[in-house]
Amino acid sequence: MDRARIRARCLFGAAIASLRKCCSYGTFRAVFPILGWLPRYSSHWLRMDLLAGVTVGLTVVPQALAYAEIAGLPVQYGLYSSFMGSFVYCLLGTSKDITLGPTAIMSLLVSIYAFHDPAYAVLLAFLSGCVQLAMGILRLGFLVDFISLPVIKGFTSSAALTIGFGQVKNILGLRDIPRQFFLEVYYTFHNIMETRVGDLVLGVSCILLLVLLKMMKGQLAEDSGDESSLYQVCRTIVRSIATARNAVVVVAAGIVAYSFENQGLHVFVLTGKTDRGLPPFRPPPFSKVSPNGTVHFDKMVWDMGAGLAVVPLVGFLESIAIAKAFASQNNYRIDPNQELIAIGSTNILGSFVSSYPVTGSFGRTAVNSQTGVCSPAGGIITGTIVLLSLAFLTPLFYYVPKAALAAVIICAVLPVFDGGIIAKLWKVKKLDLLPFFASFLGCFWEIQYGILAGMVLSGIILFYNIARPDAKITDHGVVVIQLQSGLNFPAVEYVRNLLYRHGLEASAPRSVILDCVHVSSIDYTAVNLLRELISEFQEKAVPLLFSNLRLEILDILISADIKGLRYFDDTETALHVSGETASVVGGMSTAKSLVNLNPDYHIEDLDGSEKPLLINRNMTFYS
Amino acid sequence: MDRARIRARCLFGAAIASLRKCCSYGTFRAVFPILGWLPRYSSHWLRMDLLAGVTVGLTVVPQALAYAEIAGLPVQYGLYSSFMGSFVYCLLGTSKDITLGPTAIMSLLVSIYAFHDPAYAVLLAFLSGCVQLAMGILRLGFLVDFISLPVIKGFTSSAALTIGFGQVKNILGLRDIPRQFFLEVYYTFHNIMETRVGDLVLGVSCILLLVLLKMMKGQLAEDSGDESSLYQVCRTIVRSIATARNAVVVVAAGIVAYSFENQGLHVFVLTGKTDRGLPPFRPPPFSKVSPNGTVHFDKMVWDMGAGLAVVPLVGFLESIAIAKAFASQNNYRIDPNQELIAIGSTNILGSFVSSYPVTGSFGRTAVNSQTGVCSPAGGIITGTIVLLSLAFLTPLFYYVPKAALAAVIICAVLPVFDGGIIAKLWKVKKLDLLPFFASFLGCFWEIQYGILAGMVLSGIILFYNIARPDAKITDHGVVVIQLQSGLNFPAVEYVRNLLYRHGLEASAPRSVILDCVHVSSIDYTAVNLLRELISEFQEKAVPLLFSNLRLEILDILISADIKGLRYFDDTETALHVSGETASVVGGMSTAKSLVNLNPDYHIEDLDGSEKPLLINRNMTFYS
Repeated sequence: MDRARIRARCLFGAAIASLRKCCSYGTFRAVFPILGWLPRYSSHWLRMDLLAGVTVGLTVVPQALAYAEIAGLPVQYGLYSSFMGSFVYCLLGTSKDITLGPTAIMSLLVSIYAFHDPAYAVLLAFLSGCVQLAMGILRLGFLVDFISLPVIKGFTSSAALTIGFGQVKNILGLRDIPRQFFLEVYYTFHNIMETRVGDLVLGVSCILLLVLLKMMKGQLAEDSGDESSLYQVCRTIVRSIATARNAVVVVAAGIVAYSFENQGLHVFVLTGKTDRGLPPFRPPPFSKVSPNGTVHFDKMVWDMGAGLAVVPLVGFLESIAIAKAFASQNNYRIDPNQELIAIGSTNILGSFVSSYPVTGSFGRTAVNSQTGVCSPAGGIITGTIVLLSLAFLTPLFYYVPKAALAAVIICAVLPVFDGGIIAKLWKVKKLDLLPFFASFLGCFWEIQYGILAGMVLSGIILFYNIARPDAKITDHGVVVIQLQSGLNFPAVEYVRNLLYRHGLEASAPRSVILDCVHVSSIDYTAVNLLRELISEFQEKAVPLLFSNLRLEILDILISADIKGLRYFDDTETALHVSGETASVVGGMSTAKSLVNLNPDYHIEDLDGSEKPLLINRNMTFYS
Repeated sequence: MDRARIRARCLFGAAIASLRKCCSYGTFRAVFPILGWLPRYSSHWLRMDLLAGVTVGLTVVPQALAYAEIAGLPVQYGLYSSFMGSFVYCLLGTSKDITLGPTAIMSLLVSIYAFHDPAYAVLLAFLSGCVQLAMGILRLGFLVDFISLPVIKGFTSSAALTIGFGQVKNILGLRDIPRQFFLEVYYTFHNIMETRVGDLVLGVSCILLLVLLKMMKGQLAEDSGDESSLYQVCRTIVRSIATARNAVVVVAAGIVAYSFENQGLHVFVLTGKTDRGLPPFRPPPFSKVSPNGTVHFDKMVWDMGAGLAVVPLVGFLESIAIAKAFASQNNYRIDPNQELIAIGSTNILGSFVSSYPVTGSFGRTAVNSQTGVCSPAGGIITGTIVLLSLAFLTPLFYYVPKAALAAVIICAVLPVFDGGIIAKLWKVKKLDLLPFFASFLGCFWEIQYGILAGMVLSGIILFYNIARPDAKITDHGVVVIQLQSGLNFPAVEYVRNLLYRHGLEASAPRSVILDCVHVSSIDYTAVNLLRELISEFQEKAVPLLFSNLRLEILDILISADIKGLRYFDDTETALHVSGETASVVGGMSTAKSLVNLNPDYHIEDLDGSEKPLLINRNMTFYS
């Protein structure tokens, strides 16, 4: 009884301790990284964060309107999606630079999986958030390691083309163009004679202006002489304009459109009427009323299908890639699983304010970092600007020409298209072109299949390497076969054939030394292969020796209790021994004589190296 | 014009040449291996083949009846499936020992995927044959390498249990027991009180007799003294009986049953009436008339579903494993792709004589080999015996008790169940227990999912090894990280973290030497990682050196044009150099000074080894 009581008390103590550890300040700080940086917050940080927050705010508002267009949703949904991330990330994020919000690629995914229906888009945000949060809690962030760079490049290049070309119709002022990529290309060219001059002129002007401002910014960044203060002021002004170029272009285009409209000239396709004010705070729609009756939750989930895997994964992938790039540039570490929790929470909470799925934006993160943001608090300013725009500016969005938004999008996504990658892959590793093209071409058809095809091809290439390991075969009187990588089940038949061809089935059977210096892993199937090979070589009285076995591999072979395993510390000793036995085999050739002729060759005698060697005295030679 | 004519003539010539090569005697002989051994055929071979053919024939007839029962088909279908393989394999096979025909595992698969309907079973044979033939022509035989031994053992052990337990009801004489494994177990125990004494006594006696005869055979094989000729004759007789024990037991049980029936005592469940005579020669049924109307081809294919992948694959797997085992035992080579063609042709042609899918039989192949067969011609005798049985013995099959057939099956499959594998896997590689159990347990539920689950788990374990490569980290003043295997995309983030933790983000940033002696493969994602790491180490003026790069890896890195790559032939030289630069970094720490301080360290100066080294003079240090 006493013992049971003691044990119960111990268990209780352990439970309390682990509970205490769970609730410790350290854990709390890991979940809320804000507790790490807030105590160090300074007035300098505040100044920099304010500046960066305003700058990003001026970028996000026009982009949000444009990206909503890509997602096929009313423009205000872009803004609905742009503020929650800023606030939540401030509490939960581990990177000072990254800004969450709508992005071009995410908007493309939403347009595919949410059918241009806000109800689906918001539910998709909620469910994607749940998936991401669960992945973060289960620490599954490592899963993105299994998507190789060629696959990512294929996907993003394809998405950039799809998104970019999708805006050509808005530049040309064409209407009623379908959204499926191939149909879009066909009808854009088919209807090209219906191009509206006003939209074309405005769109092209906007693109030129954006490119010009971007080039100016690049030019200014390089200058770093000590000029007069007037020059300094001018430079600051130009640089501010260049940085907020999206806002400048959209506002300018809006003013032009407004003046034309005021004179009764309808020369541009405009954004048109948008819902006014802040979004309501309410749970995401778990069912939806349609003209054909209520669509229930399970039907909605079924409709979104693969989107529930693709959206959270791509969202995380995009965000983590950006966060890592800037963390490395600015010398800090991010925690991928905490990032998953931050994005997941953003999407879940966002869905309560009608947000569609969001992720890290490369463009705005770059702006944030370059403006010198010091903490995620900059996001609070950005979020406030978006809220203010929603509260007060929505009536003005009526006049924003679609061609201007299209120009913003095209200039944002074209740098994502990486045409040079093909040349690089060709030069570095031609085989990696296969997953690239699978993913690139597949994504035009359906994004999930494209990514999946790329991943499967990458996996097959990897498996092929395992299945057909390189082997260096040299002839020192006996054949020395040096495997260049691990020995696992897909390689077993290949290695068996190798030993047959060069050993047992050579014109005259030959001794073989299997040099395992590069063999770092072995599995049961391979162990079984070695057992069979050793016994077959024994039956024909042809020596098969092993050299350079690593300790962990030797351990495995010894525990498998393989009869007749002969191993040596290095290939030289093995060569020395096999040289003698080989001549014996040539002369009289019986298996048993080997033991009698060379009774002195025990493993311990051959061990002249520093490294410890397991000696198994029960192991028999040709037993 | 002339040039075009010359080119056309060249093309024509080349086409003729390749056509001639295709039609050459060598190619012809590869397709028909019989041309290789027939010219060498001798009277000794004929004697041995006759003996072996008769022995196998006496084994296959009772087994065929029994296996048809497993497949859930009328008993004559077992015999229909038993002769085509013998004839076709004689023409197309590359192994002298293997005998194709119905097997326990194949019959189990047929019972699952053909719904106990002969029309489905015959169509399944045809389609499986087509798949196998196509795989053989496309030389896809290597695909079975991707099924690891634990998965195969899991599947065969599960199948052995399923088949073995499935016969318990016949031993007990129970009726109306469902065929689904779990229901079968439940109802067998539930109805155990309805056991029929006659069947039980007969079944158990048959099992005991079979075990006894098998043990006798094992005992006889060991004896090898020089005994009197009378003893020799007795031994031959006993051995013949022991070898043909299945036929002996079934005939004996049949006689017992016949005498009881003749006296009007119905104490055994009998096989009952079977169709008489040879099967008709006609195409397989591409549609089927059922009470609910005609079932069309596409519906039949749809119904068989995964069976069209599982049956051909398992069939090939079983056959190739057996062929390889006996080829290695008897010193000859088989060609896996030609074996695929042989099995595929057997199944296709078999479907014209109402055969269900067949494959190599382990038991009968062993009998064949032990009896001393010299060529596949033994199969002709076996096939003839089966045809004779069909023509003349079918009326007698009425009296074969089901319990006797059940005894034959149980004794055939129980050795397949390998319980010891669990202990072996535990000792050798515990992780391989996962795919074993996935496959073992999964196959009780559905065979295709069981095999698939096992294969996926094997793949994941393999991927995990790639994603988390072992690394040996040693400290020689600078950190030396030796990767133990190839560097591919799944490992990229792990290796990045390793270099961060031990290099850039150590309490004071430290120089790192990446020893790549075991790195035999690298892909684009990994090359990109190295590029990023080199540039990050450069930015912080911490040396990152590479040593022991293999030529092919170096080639890839050079073609990727990585700025600032510093590599050395061996780790000692790298240590020597980094020792100096490390102290420099400690002292004044600027990146540029490195080049100026050590202008003499060029790659060519460091090259003291025999192996050739690519020198790229354009490669810059810390450029």
